[in-house]
Amino acid sequence: MSYRWYEDPIPGPDLAALAAARERQSQLTKPPGSLGRLEALGITLAAMQGTQRPRVENVWITVFAGDHGVTAEGVSAFPQVVTAEMVRNFARGGAAISVLAEEWKARLEVVNVGTVQALEELSGVLDARVGPGTANFVHEPAMTVAQLHDALAAGHHAAERAAIGGAHLFVGGEMGIGNTTSATAVACALLDLPAARLAGPGTGLDAAGVGRKAQAIERALARHRGDRPLDALQRLGGFEIAALAGAYLRCGQLGVPVLVDGFITTVAALAAVRLQPELAAWLFYAHRSAEPGHRQLLDALGVEPLLALDMRLGEGSGAAVAVPILRAAAALHSRMATFAEAGVSRA
Amino acid sequence: MSYRWYEDPIPGPDLAALAAARERQSQLTKPPGSLGRLEALGITLAAMQGTQRPRVENVWITVFAGDHGVTAEGVSAFPQVVTAEMVRNFARGGAAISVLAEEWKARLEVVNVGTVQALEELSGVLDARVGPGTANFVHEPAMTVAQLHDALAAGHHAAERAAIGGAHLFVGGEMGIGNTTSATAVACALLDLPAARLAGPGTGLDAAGVGRKAQAIERALARHRGDRPLDALQRLGGFEIAALAGAYLRCGQLGVPVLVDGFITTVAALAAVRLQPELAAWLFYAHRSAEPGHRQLLDALGVEPLLALDMRLGEGSGAAVAVPILRAAAALHSRMATFAEAGVSRA
Repeated sequence: MSYRWYEDPIPGPDLAALAAARERQSQLTKPPGSLGRLEALGITLAAMQGTQRPRVENVWITVFAGDHGVTAEGVSAFPQVVTAEMVRNFARGGAAISVLAEEWKARLEVVNVGTVQALEELSGVLDARVGPGTANFVHEPAMTVAQLHDALAAGHHAAERAAIGGAHLFVGGEMGIGNTTSATAVACALLDLPAARLAGPGTGLDAAGVGRKAQAIERALARHRGDRPLDALQRLGGFEIAALAGAYLRCGQLGVPVLVDGFITTVAALAAVRLQPELAAWLFYAHRSAEPGHRQLLDALGVEPLLALDMRLGEGSGAAVAVPILRAAAALHSRMATFAEAGVSRA
Repeated sequence: MSYRWYEDPIPGPDLAALAAARERQSQLTKPPGSLGRLEALGITLAAMQGTQRPRVENVWITVFAGDHGVTAEGVSAFPQVVTAEMVRNFARGGAAISVLAEEWKARLEVVNVGTVQALEELSGVLDARVGPGTANFVHEPAMTVAQLHDALAAGHHAAERAAIGGAHLFVGGEMGIGNTTSATAVACALLDLPAARLAGPGTGLDAAGVGRKAQAIERALARHRGDRPLDALQRLGGFEIAALAGAYLRCGQLGVPVLVDGFITTVAALAAVRLQPELAAWLFYAHRSAEPGHRQLLDALGVEPLLALDMRLGEGSGAAVAVPILRAAAALHSRMATFAEAGVSRA
């Protein structure tokens, strides 16, 4: 892919809609400021959607799944086969994200960007395998440059489908045994931090496992250090992490608001924002994960997520739990009466 | 009312359902603990409802509205007439709680337990006026003992309606200009704290206003100090605060889970739990309000709310925003696949 689509411009929010939304918020029948963070969320959604009646009804969730060669280093509590097993669980509706998508009437699709083995045809699962899992980045780059562009393009296509489907909000999720190791390595490269500062238990490593994980990342960083986001994604990332970065960038280009999930998706967001800082205006952050390094990533991005419920599952599940907060903010901004409409006296 | 219904026993959760729910949670297709607080919420809902498939579909919201004589002391940023004006706004669907109830398909009713003036007939508003607002508790008890029992009974009746209506969850809200002053006075009495420790800006007082509010409360406490919950509600409370306490107690007796909203409802919960400690097992706490004293109330109750979004509106609005978190917890607990069902390998 020689056309570097991800460098295409990302528009800013609609400034006229922003000003009108601020004015409207100040007229709604409540003490000023009493809806707390929901007020700014409503205003931001109005500016993003260029309307005074923002909506978060059509929610599009894409879960990208891929395998990781670095699992050979013993960095996950679960065997690698679980990536594929969980893709089947997504397809059959049994996973956390499946249940939440059904509960909120959100559209859920799964994109296989690189399980080790090809999967049989599964309802709701798109085959976009970039390769049979990444290479073990302790010894060689996780992926080739061509694979990086294929993975970014898988994200691009998901964002396009969401936009064409009329999505008011895009949620990206991930599944990939070993992917907190990969995400941590990318974050360490981007933020120039030692692995011990960011490595955590992931799906449930004990202290010795976290030590192994940090060591593996340190060895990789010694080979691949450098803070250029695409280089970090290619050398240390995962197919699903690159796909998430691509999806976020394309959402920004298309003006589709994004709700970022947890640790791994935040690393994808960090890489994408480093590539195009204008993207930041299109991203909401759902929750602070129980994965200890997440707080540092959020601080590096200068953002405060909506929830802190000690979740650490991935799949987009934390974002899914936060979707109703954006729905509430949009509904309140769009449908509350003004003081004048309701005949309510002001302070 | 000589029969003291509020002393009738409150059942404990279903211990067999609790044990089965813990076992089921451990089988669901996710790393143990990875759904964070949602796991305990799902287990608790299962034990409350005595089932392995808890549901939070039918949500019942009762907003109690009443006026406060203590507004004569200049303790609110808004004029007293706003209580009645907002009741009309609830009825017409323009208030925050109206919008959220509609958005979540929750049942919303408003119970007028004591606006200063009687209101015209309004759709969705029940007339249960205990009196024309409370007396100014700086000078005399806020209400008579008979009024206290009428207000508690108004709450009892709301809980009965919710239970008969098949509610899976009860949310109480309140509207009453001056009611943070009343709630703060009750809390100071129950917790034996000086007014300056708990008094805050409410709907938007400046520092001088907060000082006036604390002084008014201190004068009242000098006359009415004492930590017996019914005495505190009668001498310092409001009709809607007593009604909330009555509703919570009856919900516990009937086994209907409750989601407590913000500062004022937490004071009602505190009074109710002091009266019957067994009630505590039936209460969820929705959010930490921006009202500064709320944190101390939550600490006194030993609870950690679900959200912290800097909301401070009342009406039950913070609880309404948190409803989907309980819905998510119930849906995940009820509908996720187990490892065996999904054929997913374990760690």
